[in-house]
Amino acid sequence: MVSRIVLENAPVKAVNLAWGQEDSTFKLVDAEVPAVKDGELRIKPLYLSNDPTQRGWIAAGQDPKRSYVPPILKGEPIRSLGLGEVLESKSDKYVVGDVVTGLLNWSQELVIPEASVSTKIDKLLPYEWYLSAIGLTGLTAYFGLKKVGQLKEGQTVLISAASGATGSMAVQLAKHFFKASRVVGIAGSADKCKWVESLGADYCANYRDADYQKKLDEFIGDEHFDVYFDNVGGEMLDFALKRTKRYGRVIACGAISGYNDRAKLAVNSWTEIISNRLTVQGFIVFDFASEIPEAVGDIVSVIKAGKVKPEGGVHVEDLSGLKNPLEKVPEVWFRLFTEEKPQGKLLTKLA
Amino acid sequence: MVSRIVLENAPVKAVNLAWGQEDSTFKLVDAEVPAVKDGELRIKPLYLSNDPTQRGWIAAGQDPKRSYVPPILKGEPIRSLGLGEVLESKSDKYVVGDVVTGLLNWSQELVIPEASVSTKIDKLLPYEWYLSAIGLTGLTAYFGLKKVGQLKEGQTVLISAASGATGSMAVQLAKHFFKASRVVGIAGSADKCKWVESLGADYCANYRDADYQKKLDEFIGDEHFDVYFDNVGGEMLDFALKRTKRYGRVIACGAISGYNDRAKLAVNSWTEIISNRLTVQGFIVFDFASEIPEAVGDIVSVIKAGKVKPEGGVHVEDLSGLKNPLEKVPEVWFRLFTEEKPQGKLLTKLA
Repeated sequence: MVSRIVLENAPVKAVNLAWGQEDSTFKLVDAEVPAVKDGELRIKPLYLSNDPTQRGWIAAGQDPKRSYVPPILKGEPIRSLGLGEVLESKSDKYVVGDVVTGLLNWSQELVIPEASVSTKIDKLLPYEWYLSAIGLTGLTAYFGLKKVGQLKEGQTVLISAASGATGSMAVQLAKHFFKASRVVGIAGSADKCKWVESLGADYCANYRDADYQKKLDEFIGDEHFDVYFDNVGGEMLDFALKRTKRYGRVIACGAISGYNDRAKLAVNSWTEIISNRLTVQGFIVFDFASEIPEAVGDIVSVIKAGKVKPEGGVHVEDLSGLKNPLEKVPEVWFRLFTEEKPQGKLLTKLA
Repeated sequence: MVSRIVLENAPVKAVNLAWGQEDSTFKLVDAEVPAVKDGELRIKPLYLSNDPTQRGWIAAGQDPKRSYVPPILKGEPIRSLGLGEVLESKSDKYVVGDVVTGLLNWSQELVIPEASVSTKIDKLLPYEWYLSAIGLTGLTAYFGLKKVGQLKEGQTVLISAASGATGSMAVQLAKHFFKASRVVGIAGSADKCKWVESLGADYCANYRDADYQKKLDEFIGDEHFDVYFDNVGGEMLDFALKRTKRYGRVIACGAISGYNDRAKLAVNSWTEIISNRLTVQGFIVFDFASEIPEAVGDIVSVIKAGKVKPEGGVHVEDLSGLKNPLEKVPEVWFRLFTEEKPQGKLLTKLA
């Protein structure tokens, strides 16, 4: 028997992190680990990736036909990207002792099909990179800028949630790999903005300033953006649509503003898309699966050249010393949606 | 001196069509026609095109830096696409007696630079076609489907405002030129829907039915649309985004739902763009200017083959018998925004 967290109540609005209440979102259970069958692996998660998109996976009222992954149902384990060690293998591709990334869940141990593995770690690069700079976060920033935003050398880009896991990689890649002439970020505190600027942004606006839009306008003058990398949606998107150049491109990556209240996602500047002939495109990393090896090579090259700092953008919450680390897992994850959200990528170390 | 209509008060919400009131939108004035200079033409408008986009040109509170054309200011003539006869020419390209289409205004006579002319009429095709099927309306439908929607043979398409000038051409071209396997329209009455179906739509939903979405769903079953041609925005767009397939395309052409109340333009399904990786793109015909001759050829070919009926889609309001036809011009134009909106393209005949 192992510890595992399952969904107890799909949240309609707020998440309830407390255990054992009538409307608790999560439940900690003891679960059997089934026997490993052909093509399967038994995995011990070492690190969990904390991602805003998981909030969508557990939200109530989703249409399974329209969701990009099946919603997590009551009683099902909470899926999470992660990095784990292979304890047992009936796969031809992986042996005991391999460390892999893939779609895991909030469990002490679990059995997964080999198809759920994304990468086998080569152990020459730090584990954390595989869940940040060259994991889904870094790849999302890379493909967003390259394939969706089609950012070219000398162009200008605006990036929201710029101190977040994806945003901070987007800032660095835009400046140091794609060679944008101007990179402007939007983040949620003066400290975060200072950090975003240290990563290479020419300017970062703190959206908690009532007049952040005015300050951003003063910085950019009449030079609007060729590309907007949207991680936020709602009012900030409205503002950004009005600051995107004619024929500009909008990378529709995330909508963190609406995770707790969908009403905040209302977009009121749709007509900007028409009058300024903008192109808006949604995507996920796996739309560009065949190009992942090239992307990883590109990202590793700028890290090794000392231009992109993955370490500075990774915050690891180490729970490995606790008796049952899983107990704290939801709380750490939920920081993504609070003032305690750290800069860059938030990882949970379980063992 | 000639009669001319100028902007008196840029409407904040409703248009006031009455003459001579404090908040009248328009004013009828007597204007001097200036001497014709080199490169200019004196034109007598014979037909005016009535277009929803003119509502945007006169709206209050526009940002001139963001508008796709300069807003019309107080005292300026009301710009309109139209067809007119050359009365005097100091242009090498046009002679007296030529009939041309171009950017005119609501005047008995006016002087325009030759650059404002779009087409010289060859007089072998009906005048009305040049302001409908092969004018901006038909070209908007054509380029929207071809370049923005990238509609392919055998795909499915949903078209809003399907009985409108652009929508009715989009329905016909989608079915008869691009050979979509399924064309579904949305229009505002049972009669209009019947007409849309007569043009080639496989089904048309009447949005005045409270359960039109349910009926449309029953018709399409689980087969969502590859392409959505949006002329409406707002709630209907929200519905359509949820009925667009993964990797589908949205042609952001118009937003007639918001002309009198911008609040109706709020879009609440933005996250569909992300989760289903939709591409949304705005455009105007002139983005594809170099391809207009090919487009006209394509459209004329399906008209001449008897597959597309421009005549059925053109309603001409003939004011030529009136003493001062201009007096009725705003009233005719405003039908676009009322229940009296005719099927297809609404033209005003002045002379």
